[in-house]
Amino acid sequence: MNAEELHREALLIDGLIISNWSRSVFEDMARGGVNVANCTCSVWEGFRDTMSNIARWKIWLEEHDDLLRPVRRISDIQAAKDEGRVGIILGWQNTSAIEDRVEYLRLFHELGVRVIQLTYNTQNLVGSGCWEGRDGGLSDFGRDVIDEMNRLGILVDLSHVGPVTSREAIEHSKVPVAYTHCCPTGLREHPRNKTDEELQRIVAAGGFVGIATYPPFLPKGPDTTVDDCVDAFDYTIDLVGEDNVGIGTDFTQDQGPSFFEWLRSDKGDGRSLAPNMTTHVTMPIGFETIANYPNLTAAMLRRGWSEGRVRKILGENWLRFLGEVWAS
Amino acid sequence: MNAEELHREALLIDGLIISNWSRSVFEDMARGGVNVANCTCSVWEGFRDTMSNIARWKIWLEEHDDLLRPVRRISDIQAAKDEGRVGIILGWQNTSAIEDRVEYLRLFHELGVRVIQLTYNTQNLVGSGCWEGRDGGLSDFGRDVIDEMNRLGILVDLSHVGPVTSREAIEHSKVPVAYTHCCPTGLREHPRNKTDEELQRIVAAGGFVGIATYPPFLPKGPDTTVDDCVDAFDYTIDLVGEDNVGIGTDFTQDQGPSFFEWLRSDKGDGRSLAPNMTTHVTMPIGFETIANYPNLTAAMLRRGWSEGRVRKILGENWLRFLGEVWAS
Repeated sequence: MNAEELHREALLIDGLIISNWSRSVFEDMARGGVNVANCTCSVWEGFRDTMSNIARWKIWLEEHDDLLRPVRRISDIQAAKDEGRVGIILGWQNTSAIEDRVEYLRLFHELGVRVIQLTYNTQNLVGSGCWEGRDGGLSDFGRDVIDEMNRLGILVDLSHVGPVTSREAIEHSKVPVAYTHCCPTGLREHPRNKTDEELQRIVAAGGFVGIATYPPFLPKGPDTTVDDCVDAFDYTIDLVGEDNVGIGTDFTQDQGPSFFEWLRSDKGDGRSLAPNMTTHVTMPIGFETIANYPNLTAAMLRRGWSEGRVRKILGENWLRFLGEVWAS
Repeated sequence: MNAEELHREALLIDGLIISNWSRSVFEDMARGGVNVANCTCSVWEGFRDTMSNIARWKIWLEEHDDLLRPVRRISDIQAAKDEGRVGIILGWQNTSAIEDRVEYLRLFHELGVRVIQLTYNTQNLVGSGCWEGRDGGLSDFGRDVIDEMNRLGILVDLSHVGPVTSREAIEHSKVPVAYTHCCPTGLREHPRNKTDEELQRIVAAGGFVGIATYPPFLPKGPDTTVDDCVDAFDYTIDLVGEDNVGIGTDFTQDQGPSFFEWLRSDKGDGRSLAPNMTTHVTMPIGFETIANYPNLTAAMLRRGWSEGRVRKILGENWLRFLGEVWAS
């Protein structure tokens, strides 16, 4: 089976996309063969603004229902593939949206939110982020939040979470958790990357690692090619095996400098967390848009991966893992 | 000068009252000779509900302007005494009201908020509270908050703040800070009380201690008399001298069980922080209502205090200290 056929036939689940949503991005997702993606709909927003973002998604799902369909349960994933539509998982990169109310998780779960990152870069009511000066660990409120997420079947994402809070969340959660989008520190030192020990720890606890194809996390930075991206998968698979690893591209298609400034300011408008970091981020050479996704599969095959490994990493692993977390 | 005359003539500033506000409470404050009080208008509330509470205070200040007047600057304190009206300082016991926005402090300062406690019992965006399982210290956002409070001239209150966060706030703040309402651990072990070292540390940094007359913090609990309250002042004065100590009664007049349940639940409706603690709190014998305030002055004189010491503790110390913090 050649790369194009394999890519078309395999299940493809992207563990994180945070693009500037539009018909054009949705078309690129479809063109790229994405069957399901965890689409960020809250980063710094509080309750009301997140509700507005979700309402906006409901409108997009209606307006573009030729291209999109919601994913709320495991059976929706295969349905998305069968229908040839892109399945949308609503996800958050922060817990700011519940503000100070654990019980709001019920509302958001009912509205379709299935992946929630505990903290985004800095400290919040739940714990600390990976750019906070010091990580004081998971708060008592944070334990209550995880308990409720476990009960409802919402995936705990630790990608931007600080190291101490992450370790304690892994210990506390009764259900396996994930880094949905990161790269190994072994390839590049970066506040967002994870050490060998961190990658091993989460997988040892039954958890999951989604590998990002985001150039700032990779050794060559803006010169990263789609083939270089495969290094991050290989490194991680060598470390933790091929069954608990998938993709979380962190695709920021069509996002401009003001978006990155917002992301990198505490709470969206405070102190800059990375004042010297560029706000002009480009995607890998050969994987410039989500429509180029087949090039990633081709690069995996060029690297000598078996068809079985490619299928696991592209989507089968995510499917099995989400089944364990969502429970339905 | 007898106790009644001294009480009438001395300046009386109460560093914390959190009563169930009404004409009847305002009358008792006037009857008790309170010249100025830091009145709590936010505990667990967020931005909007705190704004509602402040709007409610503006209405009370209009409706009861025969009894009350606002205090926004140091000169308002003497004016309140001269006019024979109770001066109201608006204060908070949490930073939940600014939610995730440092710049909201400007708005609240302009509306008259002059005392803000960094955390209430549990962890928030700024730091940890005295009932949190572990105190991870002051967050980076917390440092930004203190910087802005310093700049605006808002008193940093640490009464319900955790020990590590308190220590770091004392170190970080460029302006002296206060425990507005607490008792010494040396008299009773209690999560809300402060150790000798903590009391000495805050005063060594130019800070202030307001002593509470709240029976749960004192050795005899509900059997505490107004004379027993003087023990807490004596203990603290022996430890840190008589110049940086004042009163912060923590008067909860007319508050019922549901209020205490709200206070003692994380964020107002979460996990109970003190499930075995009574929600039926009575004030000291002889100091049952704010109207009985002259009995406290009498008890101080019975203890052999000089007139000078009584005047300092009743209000002169607070006046000098607030002058340093508010700057105008």
